Amino acid sequence: MVRVLILGAAGMIGRRLADRLAREGMPGRGPISALLLADVVRPVGPPGLEAEVRAVDIASAQAVKDLIAWRPDVIFHLAAIVSGAAEENFTLGYDINVKATWSLLEALRLAGHSARLVFSSSVAVFGAPVPEIVPDDFHLTPRSSYGAQKAICELLVSDYSRKGFVDGVSLRLPTIVVRPGAPNAAASGFLSGILREPLRGVAANLPVDPLSEVWIASPGVAVKSLLHAAALPPQATDGGRVINGRGLSVSVADMIAALRAIAGGAVADLITHTPDPRIAAIVGSWPKAFACDQARSLGFTVDTGIDAILRAHIADTAGERTGDA
Amino acid sequence: MVRVLILGAAGMIGRRLADRLAREGMPGRGPISALLLADVVRPVGPPGLEAEVRAVDIASAQAVKDLIAWRPDVIFHLAAIVSGAAEENFTLGYDINVKATWSLLEALRLAGHSARLVFSSSVAVFGAPVPEIVPDDFHLTPRSSYGAQKAICELLVSDYSRKGFVDGVSLRLPTIVVRPGAPNAAASGFLSGILREPLRGVAANLPVDPLSEVWIASPGVAVKSLLHAAALPPQATDGGRVINGRGLSVSVADMIAALRAIAGGAVADLITHTPDPRIAAIVGSWPKAFACDQARSLGFTVDTGIDAILRAHIADTAGERTGDA
Repeated sequence: MVRVLILGAAGMIGRRLADRLAREGMPGRGPISALLLADVVRPVGPPGLEAEVRAVDIASAQAVKDLIAWRPDVIFHLAAIVSGAAEENFTLGYDINVKATWSLLEALRLAGHSARLVFSSSVAVFGAPVPEIVPDDFHLTPRSSYGAQKAICELLVSDYSRKGFVDGVSLRLPTIVVRPGAPNAAASGFLSGILREPLRGVAANLPVDPLSEVWIASPGVAVKSLLHAAALPPQATDGGRVINGRGLSVSVADMIAALRAIAGGAVADLITHTPDPRIAAIVGSWPKAFACDQARSLGFTVDTGIDAILRAHIADTAGERTGDA
Repeated sequence: MVRVLILGAAGMIGRRLADRLAREGMPGRGPISALLLADVVRPVGPPGLEAEVRAVDIASAQAVKDLIAWRPDVIFHLAAIVSGAAEENFTLGYDINVKATWSLLEALRLAGHSARLVFSSSVAVFGAPVPEIVPDDFHLTPRSSYGAQKAICELLVSDYSRKGFVDGVSLRLPTIVVRPGAPNAAASGFLSGILREPLRGVAANLPVDPLSEVWIASPGVAVKSLLHAAALPPQATDGGRVINGRGLSVSVADMIAALRAIAGGAVADLITHTPDPRIAAIVGSWPKAFACDQARSLGFTVDTGIDAILRAHIADTAGERTGDA
């Protein structure tokens, strides 16, 4: 029996994570005894499990303390100001991406409650120039405020864990593709947009060179990875508490070719191509492939290919598209 | 003409830096038009230059703002809770080593005053296991709160610099040997103590294996390195704003042998050897040698050897020792 808190539960990954917890419980930790979902907008509980939902601004240290007073055994911290928005709004990015995470760690320390924390980090902690395949121990040179903020939190999570104030793991997720729903302010948003929007008959712009290679994972693999990180045995983190999550390295052209093959030329032709140097600079600074030796040895799973990712997205959204018709 | 602020000006390096600025001005920036010395205890101005001195607790963001209102062109930020103390007092370490540095960056950003900032960082940002010779791009795995705090500040200094809010350089100084004056709470304090104390006829304890190798620089080279960092031209930081400062790799046994050769066996025999596992663990996690390719190419200087370091210390303290007699 395990008490689970999801911070950022109204986001796409948070919702899918809650759904999966409701269906299958926590791998290796048994059924969910209580689920607390928090986000800046009130989250919706998953079908099949009674969940407590709270609209919380984690910029408030007191609000974060109140969440910890609920005594979660496992915390998934997914709440963040995404990359594009953090670059535009410097103060907001630091307030939410660093100060609120730090408040969370402080609340755990002061409560004497060393919960398992899975912190959702990002490959944006790395910056150009990077090797073709980035090793697990590559140095951090973020070229965006978002990347710097995630790197700072990784250091905090590791140090608070070393001191025994929390039992934390930072998981650097690849860019999530295909992200359903409305576009968000992430600089990587177009990577989902160029697949999602044409599939529902809407044009989408590609702001970067089609030969750009990117490091992606499906929403399903991202959720599985978070759950796997939460269930890691204590000795798994002896080699370090920051894990490069597994992903696929694909070119944007490959993604468009898969869309053309699966959904047809008329759909793929809905993609326009107006370059955006700001987006291209941010995305171009991100690494294209990772070795992920640690994640492999710890048993993290990976997508089989862009075709499978695209077919899974189409299956996931079939209900929605039928509803639209 | 240049306005210089030294934060942590009452410390050993801060005092030597102020003395040198008074004697020689700022390399590449001309004479000092104004010098502001700040520390938690009131610093003493150097001979030969009128300096403003302030006792300031940088835990207060307002106090830090007031320092920036003085409009320094160059800031040396040397103020810190040292490694042993930061490990003992978790909150104090984060308050001074992270929050106060962040206050300084925020004060510069809010004042629209992008001064040159030299941030004194540390090789404690690295942790075991490290290679025999650590390359410039080695990854950060601090094994102490002090190391984590310094790494976090490096990320902040680089990101604020990237955004143009400050023109910062983080310089990772080796352990300073021989540090004159009273022992401080740094875990590395014994490295100075085993030379300094016997030289004035006082016993000193060696808490680690004599075969331990350490990475050191003299106070003179540390000060020269800080001044060199302050004078770096803009393009020098294109390759990154974090620099591994140059040092010497020596064993503790070599240090004791140099003491024996220069000061005699009776002096060296004042060293006792009671192991301290806590100190040994911290010091043992620090790297023993660095490649320093970037620092070499940027023209940073280095000590010629432990003998020269020891002789310079004896010359520096000759007056003090005569005074004692």
